[in-house]
Amino acid sequence: MSGYKELKRECYEANMQLPALGLVIYTFGNVSIIDRDAGVCAIKPSGVPYEQMKAEDMVVLDLENHVVEGKLRPSSDTKTHTFLYRKWTEIGGIVHTHATYSVAWAQAQMDIPIFGTTHADHLTYDIPCAPPMEDKLITQDYEHMTGQQITDCFSGRELSYKEVEMVLIGNHGPFTWGKDGAKAVYNCKVLEELAKMAFLTLQINPSAPRLKDRLIQKHYERKHGKNAYYGQN
Amino acid sequence: MSGYKELKRECYEANMQLPALGLVIYTFGNVSIIDRDAGVCAIKPSGVPYEQMKAEDMVVLDLENHVVEGKLRPSSDTKTHTFLYRKWTEIGGIVHTHATYSVAWAQAQMDIPIFGTTHADHLTYDIPCAPPMEDKLITQDYEHMTGQQITDCFSGRELSYKEVEMVLIGNHGPFTWGKDGAKAVYNCKVLEELAKMAFLTLQINPSAPRLKDRLIQKHYERKHGKNAYYGQN
Amino acid sequence: MSGYKELKRECYEANMQLPALGLVIYTFGNVSIIDRDAGVCAIKPSGVPYEQMKAEDMVVLDLENHVVEGKLRPSSDTKTHTFLYRKWTEIGGIVHTHATYSVAWAQAQMDIPIFGTTHADHLTYDIPCAPPMEDKLITQDYEHMTGQQITDCFSGRELSYKEVEMVLIGNHGPFTWGKDGAKAVYNCKVLEELAKMAFLTLQINPSAPRLKDRLIQKHYERKHGKNAYYGQN
Amino acid sequence: MSGYKELKRECYEANMQLPALGLVIYTFGNVSIIDRDAGVCAIKPSGVPYEQMKAEDMVVLDLENHVVEGKLRPSSDTKTHTFLYRKWTEIGGIVHTHATYSVAWAQAQMDIPIFGTTHADHLTYDIPCAPPMEDKLITQDYEHMTGQQITDCFSGRELSYKEVEMVLIGNHGPFTWGKDGAKAVYNCKVLEELAKMAFLTLQINPSAPRLKDRLIQKHYERKHGKNAYYGQN
Repeated sequence: MSGYKELKRECYEANMQLPALGLVIYTFGNVSIIDRDAGVCAIKPSGVPYEQMKAEDMVVLDLENHVVEGKLRPSSDTKTHTFLYRKWTEIGGIVHTHATYSVAWAQAQMDIPIFGTTHADHLTYDIPCAPPMEDKLITQDYEHMTGQQITDCFSGRELSYKEVEMVLIGNHGPFTWGKDGAKAVYNCKVLEELAKMAFLTLQINPSAPRLKDRLIQKHYERKHGKNAYYGQN
Repeated sequence: MSGYKELKRECYEANMQLPALGLVIYTFGNVSIIDRDAGVCAIKPSGVPYEQMKAEDMVVLDLENHVVEGKLRPSSDTKTHTFLYRKWTEIGGIVHTHATYSVAWAQAQMDIPIFGTTHADHLTYDIPCAPPMEDKLITQDYEHMTGQQITDCFSGRELSYKEVEMVLIGNHGPFTWGKDGAKAVYNCKVLEELAKMAFLTLQINPSAPRLKDRLIQKHYERKHGKNAYYGQN
Repeated sequence: MSGYKELKRECYEANMQLPALGLVIYTFGNVSIIDRDAGVCAIKPSGVPYEQMKAEDMVVLDLENHVVEGKLRPSSDTKTHTFLYRKWTEIGGIVHTHATYSVAWAQAQMDIPIFGTTHADHLTYDIPCAPPMEDKLITQDYEHMTGQQITDCFSGRELSYKEVEMVLIGNHGPFTWGKDGAKAVYNCKVLEELAKMAFLTLQINPSAPRLKDRLIQKHYERKHGKNAYYGQN
Repeated sequence: MSGYKELKRECYEANMQLPALGLVIYTFGNVSIIDRDAGVCAIKPSGVPYEQMKAEDMVVLDLENHVVEGKLRPSSDTKTHTFLYRKWTEIGGIVHTHATYSVAWAQAQMDIPIFGTTHADHLTYDIPCAPPMEDKLITQDYEHMTGQQITDCFSGRELSYKEVEMVLIGNHGPFTWGKDGAKAVYNCKVLEELAKMAFLTLQINPSAPRLKDRLIQKHYERKHGKNAYYGQN
C-alpha cells in the first residue's frame, strides 16, 4: 500500500488543472509538489496524456532524483524541479508548461514589462526572461542546468523567489511555483494572461509606458502587504 | 432572516455572468447592484472564487461603506462602487473586471476610437480612458479616489454617465454601469468586444478613419432615440 | 393556426446557428429566409436574445415590409433583407452579423484579398467592402438604402450575387446570402474564417501576394465548375 | 460484409479528431490511413460534414486510386494522399486541413522558423513552405501534382519525411503525416500550435533569433535520439 497516496492525489489534481485551464495540449506540461517532511516530491510521469493519466501514475522521488514509488518514468524535466526544491526551501509546488503567449515572450527573449495593475496585483517586477543556456552547459546535465539557469537569473537580478513566483526560460517556456501545487498552477495561468495582455498592449501602443512606481506598490501591498485588505484572511 | 435576500440573489447572478461570458479568470472582477429605496448596495466578497461563491456570501453595505449584512469582507474595490452610486444617482449596477482586450487598451493609455456601427449602437463617443492617478492621490484613500478619477474624467470631457456607460482607467482596467446589474454586465461584454474589434481594425489599417458623424447619430438614434425602432419596446 | 409554421421553424433554426457558431453575442445578428411561391419571408424579431427566442417568435412579412404574421416587431434590418430579395430573385436566405474579424475588415474599409485556396474554394474575387453610405442617403430610409448600397457595389464592380455571396459594408459589418438560410449562415462562418486568415497573413507578411489566377480558377472549378468533383452531387 | 471494417473505423476516428481539436470547420480537412499489407488506404468521403459522417462512409481505395469499397466519392484530395503513400513507403497516415494559423503562414509563403524548444521537441528544421505550383502543372492532374510538389520540396531541400512530418503548401495549407492516423493528426495539431507561437513571437520581437543549434539537437534527441528519455518507451 502506498505511503504517498495523498501526495499523489494532490499532484494528480494539480496536473489535471493544466488542460482544464487551457495551458497545455497533449503532454506539454507538468506539475510537481513536495512533502518537505518526508523529503519527497511527486511529479507527472513522462509523456502520458492527461486524459489517460490516473492519480496512482504519479511518480514519487527523493530530492536526489531517486524514484521512491511509481512504475512509470518521471517527467523528463524532473531534475529542474528537484534542483529548485533543493535551492528554494520554501516552495511547495512547481509548474512547467508550453502555454502559448508565455512561450511567445520566451521565444522573443524579452522580459514581460509591468504594464498594469493586473500585473502589480501579483508581482512588482517585470517577469524575467532568463537567457538561453550556454552551449557548454547544454551538453552537461541539461535539466539540472535549467534549474541552475533559473536560480542564476534570480540571484543575478537580486530577485526573491518568494516575491517573484514565475520565470521565462529564453526560447523555451515558463516555470512557475508557489506554496503548493494549486498556487503554482494559479501563477502559471496568471502569467499566461499577463503575457497576452502585454502582447496586445504593445500592438496597440508600441511605446506604452510601464506602470508608475506608486501604483505598483499600492496594488501589490493591498493584496500582499502587511495591511493587505484583499481576500478573506 | 435576511432582509436583502432578493438583492443578494440578483447580485450573485450578475457576478456569475462574468466567468460565463469569459470576462474574468479566478477572482478578477466584481459586480455590485443597488437598492436606492433601502439605501444599500450588494457586492461580491473579496477574493472568493466564483465557483465556490453562493448568493448568501454577497455583502450588503450602505453608501458610506458600512457593512449592513454579510460575514465576509466586501470587494477591495467597494469604495469605488459606492462613490459612483453617491455621485451618479441613476445607476443601478456597476461592474469592474480585468477583461483582456479592455485592459490592453487601458494599459496602452488610449481611448477606444469609434470605428463602426457596433460601437455607435451603444454610444456616440470614443470610449474614454482616464489617465493614471497622480501619486499624491494614490497614497490617500485609493479606491475612493478611483471613483473621483472616473467622475473627474467625465466632467472634464463633459460626458454624461447616462449616455456613456463605460470607462477605462489607465493602466488598470474597465468599469461599466447601467440601470441594473444585468445591464452593467452587458456593457462590460460589449466593451470587451468593441476593444477587440478596434484592436483588429488598427492592425489591418493603422489609419482607419472614425465612423462618420451621420452614421454615429443614425445608429445610436435607431436604438436609443425618441423614435427608436430597435427592440420590442 | 399558422400557415407559415415550417418557414418559421427553418428561420428559427438558421438564427440559432449564429450563436452556436460563435458569430454573434447577445442580439448582434439576424437571419431571414424567403418562400418565393408565397411571396413572404420570415426574419428574427428585433432585440430578442437567442436563448429566449422560440420558433413562433419569427416574424413573417411580404416583400413590401408588411407584417403578415407575428406579434413581435421584426429586425430593424428588415428593409435591407427585403430589398435584396426583391432585387436578387434567386437568393433564399440572408444573414447579417457583427462577427469580430469581418467587422474589423469593414471598419478598416478594405476588401479582403484572396490570399489562398480556402478563399478560392468559395469565390474567385476579393471580398468586396462597400463604402460607407453618403450623408444624404443616411437621412433617407436607412435600411432600404443599405440594400441599395450593396446592389450598387455589385453592379459597379460587375459582380454577380450568384458567384459572390458575401459583402462587407464599410464601418458596419457583413451581409451574406445563399440558396437557403443554412447556406447563408455557412457563408457567414466562412467569411469570418477568411477574414481571420487574411488578417493573420498580413501580420506575418505585409507584402503577401494574392493567389495566382490559375489556382483561383482551379479551386473554384473543382468545387463549383461544370466538371466539379468535390462533394457527393 | 466489409473486409475493411477496422481500417474504416480507425480512419473515421482519426477524422473525428479534427473538429474535436479545433482544426477544421465544416468539411475543411481529411485524414487517410493505409493498410500496407492489403495495399489499400481509407479516406474521408468528399464534402460530408463531420457530424453526419459514420465509420461505414469511409472510402477504401488501392494506391492507384481505384475504389475498392464504399458508396461515396472519396475526398477530392485523394490523389495527393495516394501519391505520398506510394513515394514514402513508411508513412501510415496523412492529414490535410485548412487550420487557421497554418494557413496564414502558407498564405504568407514563408517557412515557420524554429524559434523554441516546443518546435525542437518535434523537428530540427524550419517547417518548410513549398512554393505555389507552376501554372502548367495546375492544369494537369492537380491533386497528383500536389503530391509531387511536396516530395520535390523535400528532395530539393534534402529533408527526410521521417524526420520532418509536416509541410505547408504555399497559398494552400498544411499536410502532415506519421506512422499512423493518430500520429498524423497529432502532428497537425502541433503544427497549428507552432504556427501560432511563431506568429506571436514575431509580433512581439520582429528580430527574434532562431533557436541555437545546440538546443535544437538537445531537445530533439532527448525525445527522439537513441538515448531518448522522454516518454515511457
